[in-house]
Amino acid sequence: MDKQDIRKKERKEVQQTKTEKSEKKQEKITFSKSKEEEFSQWYSEIVEKAELVDLRCNIKGFVVFRPWAVRTMEVLYDLFEEELQKKGHEPAWFPALIPESNLKKEEAHVEGFVPQVFWVTQAGNTILEEKMAMRPTSETAMYPMYSLWIRGHSDLPLKIYQRAQVWRYETKATRPLIRSREFYWIEGHDCFATKEEAEAQVLEDIDTTEKVMHQKLGIPFLPLRRPSWDMFPGAVYTIGSDTFTPDGKVIQQPSTHLLSQEFAKTFDIKFKDKDGKDKYVWQTCYGPCVSRILASLVTTHGDNKGLVLPFAVSPIQTVIVPIYRTENKEKVVKECKKLSEEIKSLGIRVKIDEKEVSPGNKFYFWEMKGVPLRLEIGEQELKTREYTLYLRDENKKMKIKNLNDLKKQGELFDKRLKDKADLFINKTIIACKTKEEIKKALDDKKIARIEFCSIGKEGMACAETVEKDLGAFVRGARHDKKEIPKGKCLFCGKKATEIVYIAKSY
Amino acid sequence: MDKQDIRKKERKEVQQTKTEKSEKKQEKITFSKSKEEEFSQWYSEIVEKAELVDLRCNIKGFVVFRPWAVRTMEVLYDLFEEELQKKGHEPAWFPALIPESNLKKEEAHVEGFVPQVFWVTQAGNTILEEKMAMRPTSETAMYPMYSLWIRGHSDLPLKIYQRAQVWRYETKATRPLIRSREFYWIEGHDCFATKEEAEAQVLEDIDTTEKVMHQKLGIPFLPLRRPSWDMFPGAVYTIGSDTFTPDGKVIQQPSTHLLSQEFAKTFDIKFKDKDGKDKYVWQTCYGPCVSRILASLVTTHGDNKGLVLPFAVSPIQTVIVPIYRTENKEKVVKECKKLSEEIKSLGIRVKIDEKEVSPGNKFYFWEMKGVPLRLEIGEQELKTREYTLYLRDENKKMKIKNLNDLKKQGELFDKRLKDKADLFINKTIIACKTKEEIKKALDDKKIARIEFCSIGKEGMACAETVEKDLGAFVRGARHDKKEIPKGKCLFCGKKATEIVYIAKSY
Repeated sequence: MDKQDIRKKERKEVQQTKTEKSEKKQEKITFSKSKEEEFSQWYSEIVEKAELVDLRCNIKGFVVFRPWAVRTMEVLYDLFEEELQKKGHEPAWFPALIPESNLKKEEAHVEGFVPQVFWVTQAGNTILEEKMAMRPTSETAMYPMYSLWIRGHSDLPLKIYQRAQVWRYETKATRPLIRSREFYWIEGHDCFATKEEAEAQVLEDIDTTEKVMHQKLGIPFLPLRRPSWDMFPGAVYTIGSDTFTPDGKVIQQPSTHLLSQEFAKTFDIKFKDKDGKDKYVWQTCYGPCVSRILASLVTTHGDNKGLVLPFAVSPIQTVIVPIYRTENKEKVVKECKKLSEEIKSLGIRVKIDEKEVSPGNKFYFWEMKGVPLRLEIGEQELKTREYTLYLRDENKKMKIKNLNDLKKQGELFDKRLKDKADLFINKTIIACKTKEEIKKALDDKKIARIEFCSIGKEGMACAETVEKDLGAFVRGARHDKKEIPKGKCLFCGKKATEIVYIAKSY
Repeated sequence: MDKQDIRKKERKEVQQTKTEKSEKKQEKITFSKSKEEEFSQWYSEIVEKAELVDLRCNIKGFVVFRPWAVRTMEVLYDLFEEELQKKGHEPAWFPALIPESNLKKEEAHVEGFVPQVFWVTQAGNTILEEKMAMRPTSETAMYPMYSLWIRGHSDLPLKIYQRAQVWRYETKATRPLIRSREFYWIEGHDCFATKEEAEAQVLEDIDTTEKVMHQKLGIPFLPLRRPSWDMFPGAVYTIGSDTFTPDGKVIQQPSTHLLSQEFAKTFDIKFKDKDGKDKYVWQTCYGPCVSRILASLVTTHGDNKGLVLPFAVSPIQTVIVPIYRTENKEKVVKECKKLSEEIKSLGIRVKIDEKEVSPGNKFYFWEMKGVPLRLEIGEQELKTREYTLYLRDENKKMKIKNLNDLKKQGELFDKRLKDKADLFINKTIIACKTKEEIKKALDDKKIARIEFCSIGKEGMACAETVEKDLGAFVRGARHDKKEIPKGKCLFCGKKATEIVYIAKSY
């Protein structure tokens, strides 16, 4: 029996147990989609059932983010901002509206974004003389200010980010958290004296993604240098971070771009260098999108009981469910409150569930929400001071004597999630030598790794073949390490210059 | 010599000292406005010199919030969100765009806000079938969802807030942080089964303002029930929190509103009560605006050397300035880093200033930024382990031996700021018995407290007299405690029913 089968079996057993339980205790078991067998429906259902988003607001492509999603994304913001600040970035907030003339200053940029812009043309009853864009991204809002702030080499590097909403009139089908017309992100925009420093910043940004998304959240990714036809408008090169879903597709996560000096020239961002000469800056930008990373948290760790949130990110890291009868309720709850204070003082986000429903209902509720650790505490536990700890990922219980162990258990929890996700990725990437192997890999919901002629313009024809014949995309070549091909391009037969990854995408 | 004179004298002495210093050390002393004598210019200059905002972005009524402002406002968000969550509120994020049909559902509301709305009429090249408002406030975005979320009495109370930007096309003159076309706030929107609970929530909101704005930030305020002609569109009553500036004006801070049931009826927000009957909810809303509270931080505590930020809110609570010569630099900086780690472990936000400029320049820089505590550490201090601590508010130095005392010093610092501000308010409010006394009070940059006929419709004529004859406004009557008048209205001679406060306003 391979891993896949074992998981199916486990899932069925869990389902059975749940069915038995639900007959006994009349729990509301309403989540019944299989992540392995019907991933897309599973995803659609889980984001609503776990109360992450509500799709019923009457604006196409917009959702309401409910408390559990917001509290999770606030932690995501904290993790990214902490890492960015550690690396010398400072936060700022720029206007949400951008005059059309700003936006149109940089030609490549405007072509890329104008079709996606929501335009403000009217204010009160006044028709505006110049229409304004709701920012789809903030280069053209920020760079005119950079031109004022940067004078000499001592003003560099300038490393600024903003936490912001952006709006894009997506014409592709939207999908909650993954592709929406409104999303929540951080955009970092940095300026340097030399191209070398800017290129080092690109690597630093990849490291930030690694530190937060992989190390803290357990979401593995490939930092891929995108083909030239798939770059950010106005970039020299773009590194996208691809994460993987169980249905064999990729979701693009934080991108980082080395910008050409065109932006600096357009917005006149220059500095007097040590040699006394005026020079244009080199720029990078970086955009981790917390609403989309939430999607990868769902798809990477979620299971058939609901979300599974890493200890590092869950808004509630440990939930306490008091187990009592009417006659000892007061005593048990009081003791639970004491324990809760003790846990809080350890720096753990903890909550006691005091709702007037059965413990089983509470278990179900917090399992759906993905809370990693649950303490079940009744009179017995209070007597022996040995507490029942439920581990959400393994769906099993253990005993702990010392509450100090919770932090350790949280770390072990996150390590298990990360190891499992890493293993999944390693099994998902298939080295292919022929077109047939690529086709089989894609059919098996895998990612194909192949030798390829070029991700520059010369490779475009081959990439079109991939798209037409296989319904998949050349995602790019690794930027964090050079992978050296030995043979020929599978499509045109020319000498391969890159190893690329081919996948379907969201 | 009264307090005012003493302060003037102190200021002059400081100016002199600065002039002497600047001649000796060639510091850039460019801030020279007097808060007492030319408050308005002082304010305009300080928000730029302390690098809070940059006004040079090319959109009328919008500003760029620079890092020091953003980091301060992030702490403000944290303080308010912590207090709101403690009181049972949960965060959510609703779309920034609101379809015109939503906005127009509630008549009183639409009349109040439509003249101020930025309208999106176009997306890409598509003219939208229905135009959409950039939210000026979110009642009409949130309440359609509340209608779906609230079913029975167990869903109540529903207490939700969102951290959001809002946009209003202000036609009055804008003023950075105080009145802009884009501002950053929290809006809390709560639903209750009964009017009594909703009224209790209004008091709870006032308590939140008290806990954060007064207790933590040391900004005193009067929670005033606004006259009927000055209420939120669609409210039964509105409580505004007025804070005071040294030029005798008020700035309105967090408002809380008891809404009529009209919103509930319009958006069909009802619940099945315990008695089996369908009932409409009672609603409140509350809106602390962090960008505007930053303005009150500036105006309340700032002085002629720059900002003075309370220890509770300053992004850097203690700055370490290492004092060294070339030959002992490495040693001193290394020791400062150790001390910094120690201070950080006490939960204090600390920074070492390692810039290559003179200590005097660093002093000036951090004094302008309002950092409350500064440690000056040279070889002497490292030897004796007695550290020089500079207190920003008192502009004086002391010695401390134990770094654990920093937290205590921070608390004392905040207490001094609060006491000073409270004293100022007490001296600013002048009980007046005649129109002449009111005029004199306003001329003296004070707030007049008078007996008044009514803040209902009946009092409107008298309020108009106040506005016409005195250029000031009836701000309302205290809501947190009933102040009982004994005599007659100073304007119409009818029996007074309220004690009201009269002031000029920003």
